[in-house]
Amino acid sequence: MTAPFRAPCVFCEIIAGREPADVWHEDERLIVFRNRLRWLPVMLLIVPRQHKTQEQFWREDMEEAAALAVEIGKKHTPGGFRLLSNFGHDALQTVAHGHLHLLGGTPMGVYV
Amino acid sequence: MTAPFRAPCVFCEIIAGREPADVWHEDERLIVFRNRLRWLPVMLLIVPRQHKTQEQFWREDMEEAAALAVEIGKKHTPGGFRLLSNFGHDALQTVAHGHLHLLGGTPMGVYV
Repeated sequence: MTAPFRAPCVFCEIIAGREPADVWHEDERLIVFRNRLRWLPVMLLIVPRQHKTQEQFWREDMEEAAALAVEIGKKHTPGGFRLLSNFGHDALQTVAHGHLHLLGGTPMGVYV
Repeated sequence: MTAPFRAPCVFCEIIAGREPADVWHEDERLIVFRNRLRWLPVMLLIVPRQHKTQEQFWREDMEEAAALAVEIGKKHTPGGFRLLSNFGHDALQTVAHGHLHLLGGTPMGVYV
């Protein structure tokens, strides 16, 4: 009997270097890379290196992630930026591995 | 000569109790109240009691604000929720006093 199929986590694959990504920042705890979506000029993902849920990420790493997100946002989206995370079904969360979106580079619409 | 006109900050007015609001949580550092907008069943604002910019809020208070937001989100929007902040013009930030939106209570669209 083979081991049960477990879908690999795409963010863990990127962090392990097995999946290509445009990485903008990397430190011991966090990694920042471009979203594959190209809806806006700047779509970055701030991601904990450790596989954890959105809730764990917000409870454990947000002090560091927030400072990093603001620093990158100010530098690369001087006209303004949006930081957000989606939790669960109603918010259209598609990747279980916790992440913070950094969006900008153009005037955006409302957030719902 | 009269003093120059300075528009009052609506969040500071709410925090001072001079402006009505539906307050859901209050502690020494943070206050949570309903947005006046009624686009979604749950639209809350997590706000530092001290008047500060979005950047200062994210740099100074996000550890506490994140934990509180997740706690409230899990309790009141079990189907999922979105946490976000808008920084500046391109993101449609309308109130200078830093704040984190908690959105939910119904399936939401995409975030841009």
